[in-house]
Amino acid sequence: MKLLKLGGSVVTRKAERFTINIEQIRRLIQEIKKTLPQKLVIIHGGGSFGHPVAKEYNINEGYNSPHQLIGFSKTHQAMVSLNSKIINESIDAGIPAIGVSPSSFLITENRRIKKLDVIILEKLLNFGLMPVLYGDAVIDEKQGFAILSGDQLAVEIAKKLKVKRLIFGSDVDGVYTADPKLDSEAKLMGKISIREITEKSKIRGSLNTDVTGGMLGKIQEAGEAARAGIEVLIVNALEPDIIRNALLSEKVKGTYIIP
Amino acid sequence: MKLLKLGGSVVTRKAERFTINIEQIRRLIQEIKKTLPQKLVIIHGGGSFGHPVAKEYNINEGYNSPHQLIGFSKTHQAMVSLNSKIINESIDAGIPAIGVSPSSFLITENRRIKKLDVIILEKLLNFGLMPVLYGDAVIDEKQGFAILSGDQLAVEIAKKLKVKRLIFGSDVDGVYTADPKLDSEAKLMGKISIREITEKSKIRGSLNTDVTGGMLGKIQEAGEAARAGIEVLIVNALEPDIIRNALLSEKVKGTYIIP
Repeated sequence: MKLLKLGGSVVTRKAERFTINIEQIRRLIQEIKKTLPQKLVIIHGGGSFGHPVAKEYNINEGYNSPHQLIGFSKTHQAMVSLNSKIINESIDAGIPAIGVSPSSFLITENRRIKKLDVIILEKLLNFGLMPVLYGDAVIDEKQGFAILSGDQLAVEIAKKLKVKRLIFGSDVDGVYTADPKLDSEAKLMGKISIREITEKSKIRGSLNTDVTGGMLGKIQEAGEAARAGIEVLIVNALEPDIIRNALLSEKVKGTYIIP
Repeated sequence: MKLLKLGGSVVTRKAERFTINIEQIRRLIQEIKKTLPQKLVIIHGGGSFGHPVAKEYNINEGYNSPHQLIGFSKTHQAMVSLNSKIINESIDAGIPAIGVSPSSFLITENRRIKKLDVIILEKLLNFGLMPVLYGDAVIDEKQGFAILSGDQLAVEIAKKLKVKRLIFGSDVDGVYTADPKLDSEAKLMGKISIREITEKSKIRGSLNTDVTGGMLGKIQEAGEAARAGIEVLIVNALEPDIIRNALLSEKVKGTYIIP
């Protein structure tokens, strides 16, 4: 079993609100299709759908005004809309994908998943269906509501389902020694240990900061999965064939997280 | 707290596949809005979205061929699409509506809801959000998958949330002594007792048979709620102001289910 997290900057155009990256989505679906049948969960980020709305209404800060309620609605609905486009493209390609809505079945406590029941995911996977989840606006026990990042969700589901491999498909080749967009000396790290992650010092790679943490957040989440014995890698989903090969358990360019 | 079930023949045009009844939806949203704030759950049926697809792939018969998997995907996605249109109209009207996906959080056993956790619904309602659910293609413990009718879902949620009033908004005035579309002598029954329901003999009213049972199914489900002490009524949601008045706990034209 494998889990593929596709970043918001892969499935959407971050610069244009509510715009999907249709060419990339179609190519990725074709790459995924070549690796089927296998048990596979997809999780995608919010990109230009969820993030701007969540930010506008401060959803991740928790409830502090009734004015935010419509923002909670809009954030979730933006994600349903993005998810639906991905599902529809998958169905058109002949993949029995099924949208699973995080806010319908889980709650967080201080922005961390509190309880996660994966029984429905297991049953969907056993049938040969491909669950597609997403970062979402969710109910939070402590702060009222919160934004659950696709990264956190991916790691928790990967651990619960005991997946073999967790692949983070991002818009950069992996983790760099410095920010590759600013520093020409930046080198891709073929692997990074959990100790290096906790030091935090070497972590660069993506300037795309979003409400859920960007590359630093991703690597910290990823470390959790690696600690649980899962093979975790961060790769460039925008480069053809990397996702296909990663899903076929081949060695690919990217950063491996070493326990 | 109240629960409003809107039939598929109210929110969609049953004769035209994938066509919503936009004028009715907008009017109903305005009527609902006039009764807010109050704790209110909306559940809608499938109409020309879910039913034709579910029928085409025999989803309600359970799993018997891998060919059905794409049909399961398509049925759920048709319902997500219908739900999204209703949610978007609600948001446009300023109502913080939130789609809750039944297949993401519940499973059935031989087509009956097995376990229903309403904690998320309760928390959404406490905030002032309006959950909008729907009949859905769901995982079934015994037959693999099944169609969960909006009617069954409405009754189970009404019982769990202990709602005061459960309103079935249909496309006829209520339960008739005969089929009003075939028999000009047919009379609207102002009330119907649970004993009469179990006799089943007097129950007519809607020719719209669908995969989830039509009027007979609705009344049998409704009896369950009445038995639990909930005020249950079947009204014509296509007639202006009936839903508004029913949501304001006023006496309206329709059939009351008497325990």
